[in-house]
Amino acid sequence: MLRLEELSLNIPDTTKPRVVIIGGGFGGINLARKLSGKDFQVVLFNKQNYHGFWPLLYQVATAGLEPDAIAEPLRKMFDEDYEDFHFRPIRVTRINSESKTITTLIGDLRYDYLVIATGTKSNFFGNEQIKKYSFPLKQIPDALNLRSQLLQSFEMANMTKDPEKRQSLLNIVIVGGGPTGVEMAGSLAEMRKHILPGDYPGMDFSQMNIYLVEGLDRVLPPMSPESSHKTHKYLEEMGIIIKLKTLVESYDGEVVTLKGGEQIRTQTLVWAAGVAGATIEGMPPETVERGKYIVNRFNQVQGFTDIFAIGDIAKMTTDLFPNGHPGVAQPAIQQGQHLAKNFKRLLRGETYEPFEYFDKGSLAIIGRNRAVADLPKNVHLGGFIAWMAWLFVHIYYLIGFRNKLVVLINWVYRFFTYERGTRLIIRAFVRKDDKQGQEFIKLQRMD
Amino acid sequence: MLRLEELSLNIPDTTKPRVVIIGGGFGGINLARKLSGKDFQVVLFNKQNYHGFWPLLYQVATAGLEPDAIAEPLRKMFDEDYEDFHFRPIRVTRINSESKTITTLIGDLRYDYLVIATGTKSNFFGNEQIKKYSFPLKQIPDALNLRSQLLQSFEMANMTKDPEKRQSLLNIVIVGGGPTGVEMAGSLAEMRKHILPGDYPGMDFSQMNIYLVEGLDRVLPPMSPESSHKTHKYLEEMGIIIKLKTLVESYDGEVVTLKGGEQIRTQTLVWAAGVAGATIEGMPPETVERGKYIVNRFNQVQGFTDIFAIGDIAKMTTDLFPNGHPGVAQPAIQQGQHLAKNFKRLLRGETYEPFEYFDKGSLAIIGRNRAVADLPKNVHLGGFIAWMAWLFVHIYYLIGFRNKLVVLINWVYRFFTYERGTRLIIRAFVRKDDKQGQEFIKLQRMD
Repeated sequence: MLRLEELSLNIPDTTKPRVVIIGGGFGGINLARKLSGKDFQVVLFNKQNYHGFWPLLYQVATAGLEPDAIAEPLRKMFDEDYEDFHFRPIRVTRINSESKTITTLIGDLRYDYLVIATGTKSNFFGNEQIKKYSFPLKQIPDALNLRSQLLQSFEMANMTKDPEKRQSLLNIVIVGGGPTGVEMAGSLAEMRKHILPGDYPGMDFSQMNIYLVEGLDRVLPPMSPESSHKTHKYLEEMGIIIKLKTLVESYDGEVVTLKGGEQIRTQTLVWAAGVAGATIEGMPPETVERGKYIVNRFNQVQGFTDIFAIGDIAKMTTDLFPNGHPGVAQPAIQQGQHLAKNFKRLLRGETYEPFEYFDKGSLAIIGRNRAVADLPKNVHLGGFIAWMAWLFVHIYYLIGFRNKLVVLINWVYRFFTYERGTRLIIRAFVRKDDKQGQEFIKLQRMD
Repeated sequence: MLRLEELSLNIPDTTKPRVVIIGGGFGGINLARKLSGKDFQVVLFNKQNYHGFWPLLYQVATAGLEPDAIAEPLRKMFDEDYEDFHFRPIRVTRINSESKTITTLIGDLRYDYLVIATGTKSNFFGNEQIKKYSFPLKQIPDALNLRSQLLQSFEMANMTKDPEKRQSLLNIVIVGGGPTGVEMAGSLAEMRKHILPGDYPGMDFSQMNIYLVEGLDRVLPPMSPESSHKTHKYLEEMGIIIKLKTLVESYDGEVVTLKGGEQIRTQTLVWAAGVAGATIEGMPPETVERGKYIVNRFNQVQGFTDIFAIGDIAKMTTDLFPNGHPGVAQPAIQQGQHLAKNFKRLLRGETYEPFEYFDKGSLAIIGRNRAVADLPKNVHLGGFIAWMAWLFVHIYYLIGFRNKLVVLINWVYRFFTYERGTRLIIRAFVRKDDKQGQEFIKLQRMD
């Protein structure tokens, strides 16, 4: 077998400035794409070998899109046309600013410029029980686990004798009323209305309850009150049970207890309630505020000239955004592109230019013909127009010709047929401790 | 949590004859589709909740197609239009012919007619070591594991210092020169030529060796000598190392030893060398010959009038096929359709008609513009014409409008761009014992 000791990073030495980028999300790839290998050596670290289009991840969880449609291999995005570009599917474990190196399990690497673009990870606020039993929705394997869990639950509900147990299989509780939670809830509601009755003719899906639990006083808190109100109306039209100003106290895999005491029996708790910055060891604590690196308008981390942070992991405060930029794709994309420009200016002996966020507006989709959009200058759209805008923007930004086509076809196909193509339990979902999934695969495997 | 004791099959009682089908492959679904719910109650058991188009499985393993493109949810194929049809994603553990019931983990079910359509499973000929370390290619998770293993091996090779270890990572040994082995080898050769050099600019893929090991004296033994000869030529043109009349003695996960003593260091041994019928407990031993149920021309299992076997699990000998029909899709499809006709004849008080196999010919693809076809009347095609025929036939037979489109687009796209879209390590491949995969994920996960 191969041991880690036998591996090394194998990054060629160079006389060019070496830019080390940690993270292949929207920020990282937009920075790397704009840096020419003639001027810089670019080294990109990312745990997965693909770039994920996370705004559509909920589509994978609800069997609307295949995982491959929202992910693009990083080596395909940065092919031979990218001179002196080096991708390593490796986790960076430590930053050593004094020696200007980063540490990985197979060796250290010197950097001239280090860019932290690690984004966020699910935040369970220290609740180990919820971490253990709930379904987060941050990565493709999360979405595939949730897809399997949902489909397995329907199959189990179709075979259970106990009405209370059936109800707990048909109760889906989504915690978090942000874009992910709202879009997940809407997608499940469409599945309940258009797909499941045809798949399970014997079953009564009016029993299927979709709960959306939000701690604040409105859904989609990052968006305008107008859009929140429209979204609330859409969700209720689609039969989603919305609980505002409600926090989750505990979940034991069987019963979720809400603050205030209300209890809901469910086998599936979707955790879209919060994220925390994916910080890296070695940085001084004073550079971090609430899980994000404090950066100036040049994205330089406080106290450093050669360490930068972009996207969700960066906290840049401006007059327009006193609490930092919204945690969506656009600021990350723009900061990545802007930082590339600044690196080039530096080479030309010019000074950095401060980052200015250009707000293109934000969108959320609740269902077919139901979406909301906040555009600049306080323009708020809803309904079909917003839905078309959402569709266009997402297909446009999906990276990779093929993926766009596959996604487009899936969309057109689903729009006209109300069909979902990918209701596959490819890997049964199984928790390590003997829970429902274990029982499910017992049904299929005897050996 | 949910316990199996809380589940039951929940199949409604009926006065109609109940046809129980075990297996949702080509035979099972073509039988079920032709039986009307007005005349019969149809109960289909299949371990997965989807029907797989297995002839294209190798495409998933080599990152050419996404898994969802070759699989169709069974509940989507048999929707509300199919009256009194019942699918259960459950394994049948036993047949009790005396009581005319089948046994599952959640209860027994009575049948009037039982159809065994379980197909085949990988056959390691009792070699536990090969079973443990090799990569079979029978199910979608097999293909995804192999895809991850191949991509992980390239990433590791790109980071290893030891030339011998790099070689063992770049050596791929495919055991079995049948259609699966040949198509897998051809697809890997195209990947080596058109994809990998662009993905790994620093690496020399002339070092990558693809071995195809076959025990008999020609590749594609089921096809005509002409096609075998053409295929052999194509494979050699593509730089595949073919070893005929060669058997594998052992493989310890590091070194494969061939009968005769030759050894090849490889981390990836693809096992396409044999299949065995997936028989079920409870049937008398005399009904089974070399892993298949002996059936008459009506597909009735020897000694039974109410138990049938179709497709790969059935051994029907005719003058034209003294050793049974070839283990491909066509006989299964035709036997399923024919048995449906016979069941309907029975209802009309008519007698069964004997099955007659209509040979539409057989096809195999080696690479772009390289395929072979054996057509009736000893017509043998090769090259571009056969390739187009292969493409047409496979797209035509892929079940489901959407999947056909996705597959077609992938094909057109790949044909013109030499690109493969789905080179994703979505789940790192990890063996239970601490092998290479374990090391690989260590690179990515610290927590």
